[in-house]
Amino acid sequence: MANLKNRKIVMASRPAGAPKPGDFRLVEEPAPEPRDGEVLLRTSYLSLDPYMRGRMSAGRSYAKPVEVGETMVGGTVNEVVASRRPDFSVGDIVSGYAGWQDYSVSDGTGLRKLDKARAPVSTALGILGMPGMTAYTGLMIIGQPKPGETVAVAAAAGPVGSAVGQIARIKGCRAVGIAGGAEKCRYLVEELRFDAAVDHRSPTLADDLAKACPKGIDVYFENVGGKVWDAVLPLLNDFARVPVCGLIAHYNDTELPPGPDKTPLLMRAVLTRRLTLRGFIVRDFAAHAADFERDVGAWLRDGKIKYREDVVDGLDKAPDAFIGLLAGRNFGKLLVRVNPDAK
Amino acid sequence: MANLKNRKIVMASRPAGAPKPGDFRLVEEPAPEPRDGEVLLRTSYLSLDPYMRGRMSAGRSYAKPVEVGETMVGGTVNEVVASRRPDFSVGDIVSGYAGWQDYSVSDGTGLRKLDKARAPVSTALGILGMPGMTAYTGLMIIGQPKPGETVAVAAAAGPVGSAVGQIARIKGCRAVGIAGGAEKCRYLVEELRFDAAVDHRSPTLADDLAKACPKGIDVYFENVGGKVWDAVLPLLNDFARVPVCGLIAHYNDTELPPGPDKTPLLMRAVLTRRLTLRGFIVRDFAAHAADFERDVGAWLRDGKIKYREDVVDGLDKAPDAFIGLLAGRNFGKLLVRVNPDAK
Repeated sequence: MANLKNRKIVMASRPAGAPKPGDFRLVEEPAPEPRDGEVLLRTSYLSLDPYMRGRMSAGRSYAKPVEVGETMVGGTVNEVVASRRPDFSVGDIVSGYAGWQDYSVSDGTGLRKLDKARAPVSTALGILGMPGMTAYTGLMIIGQPKPGETVAVAAAAGPVGSAVGQIARIKGCRAVGIAGGAEKCRYLVEELRFDAAVDHRSPTLADDLAKACPKGIDVYFENVGGKVWDAVLPLLNDFARVPVCGLIAHYNDTELPPGPDKTPLLMRAVLTRRLTLRGFIVRDFAAHAADFERDVGAWLRDGKIKYREDVVDGLDKAPDAFIGLLAGRNFGKLLVRVNPDAK
Repeated sequence: MANLKNRKIVMASRPAGAPKPGDFRLVEEPAPEPRDGEVLLRTSYLSLDPYMRGRMSAGRSYAKPVEVGETMVGGTVNEVVASRRPDFSVGDIVSGYAGWQDYSVSDGTGLRKLDKARAPVSTALGILGMPGMTAYTGLMIIGQPKPGETVAVAAAAGPVGSAVGQIARIKGCRAVGIAGGAEKCRYLVEELRFDAAVDHRSPTLADDLAKACPKGIDVYFENVGGKVWDAVLPLLNDFARVPVCGLIAHYNDTELPPGPDKTPLLMRAVLTRRLTLRGFIVRDFAAHAADFERDVGAWLRDGKIKYREDVVDGLDKAPDAFIGLLAGRNFGKLLVRVNPDAK
């Protein structure tokens, strides 16, 4: 192994506002050597996800931030290329959290073997992985959709939002997606069978959304914040549930928006319409993993849920792809094919 | 009955901002005559509550507004003075919703006979009535307090807040009250055995509250909004629950506060700390009335819960008393003794 070279992308500086290419740096070093009880992993796919922007900031959040000079974190699909553990063999494909790099060692914690016969291994980073489970648990546990209700979801063409809308349909709800641009909206309605889709770039967003939700909104799955939230709030019905999963519109904010302070409007809506707002991250619902795997696995097998991947080739392309993700430029689950031979 | 005179207080005009005495008008008219199947009620006590400010506005809320010229609504304790129903007798004392007036007729809907031997009848408007049930259901169902947690409550010297804190103590929590002025704070700690109390008029409110909650806040029972909410938000622990019961700081608002818009701060806290904010009104939890009566009835009988009343004599004093309520001038459950002979 001594001759293997590891490329890794570290955070070169904490971004102020939107990350710039210079906030990342590609570093080369010898690949690590697995010790007894460890495996050496080669990264096949790296998942790029909005939450990573939070890790680049020093502020209080649900996980410790990446420090300057540290490797960027992220979920990965990996191939075992050397094993000093009895439970992993060379050639095994596993999901893990190896970050933005070619090679890593692991003592096996958090690794999960993937079955290529069941589904393409990249789905472990999408519909059958963290994004899929985020959609399923947030919608089912917090959203509690009932047949005939209207479920609206933001960032609807992304891996979480597209699953939310399709599960809502399976549960007998009207699914309304909010996405950026006509192509994504068309995809939601024509490919994923959403009942309606609204372009958040439209100057008439609020009216468009109201028309798409003639009976109001009972569940709003929040991935975005900002002007999308402003358009949703007036449409929320009494007793609506709002799983708060992400706020991508704000991740690059360097200051609060100008006034007036609309907090009292929000609190008044919560009170008078008896709304439930509840934040979550997927690991809070780890106890529901078996339900997720059973249900979504079956829906995928039966063709009731579709997914779309946006694959970028080459680890060196990860920073630009991530910057694009925060601007909504991806279309589907954004993955970096780190090993050019990965299937 | 034909000679009985009814005094009633009607809304003379919709208030802009804080209600003024001229927004109310006392009207005299003949008392109504009960028809077959009706009873004639004389009001003993009228309850004055913050929610009534909402009824004076035309905006969307959970109940239809009072119209100009209509009698102000409100919960009451009444004496049956004539009955054309077999199930009510002259002399019965009942709780109902007769509004700001001396006499009213009822077909029995919503009337509940009160047992003078069980507790003073005025408690049907306080600890054993709507405010007590609001405290009990909001805290238990949404707040879900666990032993060792910290429960903070605003408007803590009022009928809802004082019950919230005392129930929190019974459930093994640290109870922290937020109230206006040293006298109320002293009362909370010395009489009601709150663990700590903080004066919301203090210029060091945020620091005072942080000191009173060394382990953060797990349940915040929201009655107030405004600067109290601003002080609470940074202290909320991961997975904190916020029953949103009232927003008295905002009821007289005529415009939103100046910027910046702090909505993203709130949403970010909901997301990263996985907060639950949930609005409610007491009638949403009508199914829990038996639990409430059993538990709070027993705690009251056993001396584990105390209450305090602030009684104003005379229906004509109701407008001033209500205006004072919105400014926090009452100390305890605010009642108007409408019938001077009421016990």
